[in-house]
Amino acid sequence: MSTEDKSVRKRYEQLADELARQILDGVLRPGDRLPSVRATCEARQLSPSTVFQAYYLLEAKGLVRAMPRSGYFVNSHAKKRAPEPARSTPREGAHAVDITDLVFEVLGAAKSREIVPLGSPCPHPQLFPLDALRRSLTTSTRKLSEWSAVDDLPPGNERLRQQIGKRYLAHGLDLSLDEIVLTNGAMEALSLSLQAVARPGDAVVVESPCFYAALQSLERLGLVAIEVPTHPGEGADLSELARIVERDKPKACWFMTNFQNPLGCSMSREKKRALVQLLARHAVPLIEDDVYGELYHGGRAPDSAKTFDRSGLVLHCCSFSKSLAPGYRVGWVAAGRYGREVRRLKLMTSLSGSIPAQAALADYLQQGGYDRHLRRLREVLSNQKQALVDAVTRHFPVGTRLTRPEGGYFVWADLPWEATDAMTLHRLALAEQISIAPGPMFSNQGDFRNCLRLNFGHPWGPQLEKAVQTVGRLARPRPRQHVPPAPVDDRAI
Amino acid sequence: MSTEDKSVRKRYEQLADELARQILDGVLRPGDRLPSVRATCEARQLSPSTVFQAYYLLEAKGLVRAMPRSGYFVNSHAKKRAPEPARSTPREGAHAVDITDLVFEVLGAAKSREIVPLGSPCPHPQLFPLDALRRSLTTSTRKLSEWSAVDDLPPGNERLRQQIGKRYLAHGLDLSLDEIVLTNGAMEALSLSLQAVARPGDAVVVESPCFYAALQSLERLGLVAIEVPTHPGEGADLSELARIVERDKPKACWFMTNFQNPLGCSMSREKKRALVQLLARHAVPLIEDDVYGELYHGGRAPDSAKTFDRSGLVLHCCSFSKSLAPGYRVGWVAAGRYGREVRRLKLMTSLSGSIPAQAALADYLQQGGYDRHLRRLREVLSNQKQALVDAVTRHFPVGTRLTRPEGGYFVWADLPWEATDAMTLHRLALAEQISIAPGPMFSNQGDFRNCLRLNFGHPWGPQLEKAVQTVGRLARPRPRQHVPPAPVDDRAI
Repeated sequence: MSTEDKSVRKRYEQLADELARQILDGVLRPGDRLPSVRATCEARQLSPSTVFQAYYLLEAKGLVRAMPRSGYFVNSHAKKRAPEPARSTPREGAHAVDITDLVFEVLGAAKSREIVPLGSPCPHPQLFPLDALRRSLTTSTRKLSEWSAVDDLPPGNERLRQQIGKRYLAHGLDLSLDEIVLTNGAMEALSLSLQAVARPGDAVVVESPCFYAALQSLERLGLVAIEVPTHPGEGADLSELARIVERDKPKACWFMTNFQNPLGCSMSREKKRALVQLLARHAVPLIEDDVYGELYHGGRAPDSAKTFDRSGLVLHCCSFSKSLAPGYRVGWVAAGRYGREVRRLKLMTSLSGSIPAQAALADYLQQGGYDRHLRRLREVLSNQKQALVDAVTRHFPVGTRLTRPEGGYFVWADLPWEATDAMTLHRLALAEQISIAPGPMFSNQGDFRNCLRLNFGHPWGPQLEKAVQTVGRLARPRPRQHVPPAPVDDRAI
Repeated sequence: MSTEDKSVRKRYEQLADELARQILDGVLRPGDRLPSVRATCEARQLSPSTVFQAYYLLEAKGLVRAMPRSGYFVNSHAKKRAPEPARSTPREGAHAVDITDLVFEVLGAAKSREIVPLGSPCPHPQLFPLDALRRSLTTSTRKLSEWSAVDDLPPGNERLRQQIGKRYLAHGLDLSLDEIVLTNGAMEALSLSLQAVARPGDAVVVESPCFYAALQSLERLGLVAIEVPTHPGEGADLSELARIVERDKPKACWFMTNFQNPLGCSMSREKKRALVQLLARHAVPLIEDDVYGELYHGGRAPDSAKTFDRSGLVLHCCSFSKSLAPGYRVGWVAAGRYGREVRRLKLMTSLSGSIPAQAALADYLQQGGYDRHLRRLREVLSNQKQALVDAVTRHFPVGTRLTRPEGGYFVWADLPWEATDAMTLHRLALAEQISIAPGPMFSNQGDFRNCLRLNFGHPWGPQLEKAVQTVGRLARPRPRQHVPPAPVDDRAI
């Protein structure tokens, strides 16, 4: 695609986005006519083809329809997409974490390519620059020093940490490279962070719903989870958190501040600042799981809470697994005042990361293609989100609420109370070769039985559209349901 | 120093070495008179000063003594090489594990190439087929499927598990591939195994001395270590173990059955069988750390305890880090009846291993060069062991005891009680740019203050010879010692 094509394409998408927002915000209402193509061309200095493309796109998304010889009109069902779900209300207090077979059953389904991956935790692999990564692997392999096994002991490959440091710097964060410890993916970063700040029996605050792996990590380390009420658009409720911090004296918070899994929600910049300040007053460390931060759909990168950290209490955990190289298992933690402790824990836990993968990523980042790749990836995800949201709006029971993530690749659907229970729905869907991630995966209290996490990290097409339709059909309450046993055997995982 | 000086120095050292060997081999026996200086000068075409220097050196080492007007005579206690150390006598019962900064200080020293690596945990990287591994990395990278991030979820890369299964089969062990779970090195294998069989507060039996990482893993998981008396030649004392199993009801044993770190000792085939039977009677799982098993120096591969496992209670933990590819961080556990649990723990802990490294090793093993490489590696290590043992015998204080490992790359030196304390020695040696691994690293009770672990995994040469000589000199008791602070800053690790 030429540069010119690109800029043209960008302009028509910008226009479509702007109009879509006006429709969703109620500025343009059902039945309203869009400005004529000619008027829009003149007002915005755009070519007719750009404006037409924008209108076609809106039509394809079901937001407007063309009326012969009259122009484009806002659709009646477009006025409101599924509304957002309400804030969660977890049981108060600390609870021992109990992990069920459910997570493994759902992850087992994700391993089979026969199953439509609405419940998958991963995006589609073709979204990643696998060829460029292969080249970097080959190039960096040739240069691997015989001493790298020693040199790359924690904190890990220096060139890669420099590249990561540069990216922080571009976001206004000037971190010491010593603070950045490379890990086997973000999961190890999070687990080491937990171990650096908490001991068995301690309480840790998590969101509700929250990423099941957080609950599993807590369980494994003998920690106790306190779930804080969480707004599906804005994240953890800070006044509730303040109460919990006072009352339960937790040893840490583990929050996903951007595009939270499973909700897709983000804390605003102001809220992140307030969170960091609240926790700093009580000297409570924040384990910030920011693995989706690079996958924002709008034009502006979100901040991390780490940005506001003045006391070194934020352990910022990231990885390349969601944004660049799944399977390489390279993550890191910028551990603030816990850098030394995390380095030691890393050395004790797994000695070092895998050297070829670290070297390859250092090379890839040095080549400079990462931001270009990210821009494309964000756009693809944004489009796929739109397609999924539209499909859910079309096919799910009336009354379904849906989150509005501005990044990542998950939405959270909250079905009306009379809909099929999510656990039943999970089994019914699996029997039709479709995975979903039922709400109870994301709570240690069995909550969210009307909720699903849906993945839009896969190229949209008829198969996904049909799968959403099927899940929507299965979700509608029926007189009698035959619930088959789950066909997925977790021996595969 | 000029070349001439160097060769002169070498000649007197060569002569001293030769005479020392004759003494150790019994050619020259206690009370024997060394040939006169004049006779030696004539016979060997050496200057009197060279011969005198050699004799002085032997005297300094306590191998000979000068008798006025009579010449030099072999000392009575010089007749034999250092005998083996005695069985350990750890305090009885269970003890909370306390990890000191010591381990990090010693490991920090291992990162610097300026420091002679007698205390290093690693062998020299040039012992490994780095070029062949690079080729395998390049080849396998080209073939990497876009789906490998999903396909290689635990238990991990199937081709690599097949290759590992084949190697077990060659040792007479026909394991199910599902039982073999790939991990980030043996350390993760051991940690997952511990988590599969024990909960915080449980007791686990370890050897005494034992690998410090075992003590660290226990501490991290809130487990309690029971140290069993261990013979430096034959491993854990089984009658003591039987008493402990009856009395303390441990939830597991973590033993290194072959070429134990730090002792170098191995259990005999019969002892391994008896161990497995003893533990099976009490349903106690054995976590068998067998990372050095491939590094046997004799002609015959040792068995693993896993060979005798009839009840699936042995979790056999291995890796390629010591024998093939340090830094790739690929290990595994053949987990017996705990396969499913370990797979799940792996998924929860770090999702999967690094895909490029697993694929590269699968390719390398399939190429078929591994056994050839191992044969060469074993021979090199065996020769280096001999050189180290000889040097220690020459230079260490009279009364030093030394283990006789038949594999791996560590020996354990037990210094006479009047020698410099190992912790002091560690600091004195570091000040001379030499690392050693002092005994207290290998005990949670601060034991083994007269012991050192010495590494023979590095190509022998004058630098190592001199380092052994220096450590031997520092070990000799002196009236007053100035102990400098350790120059190694563990921020480097």
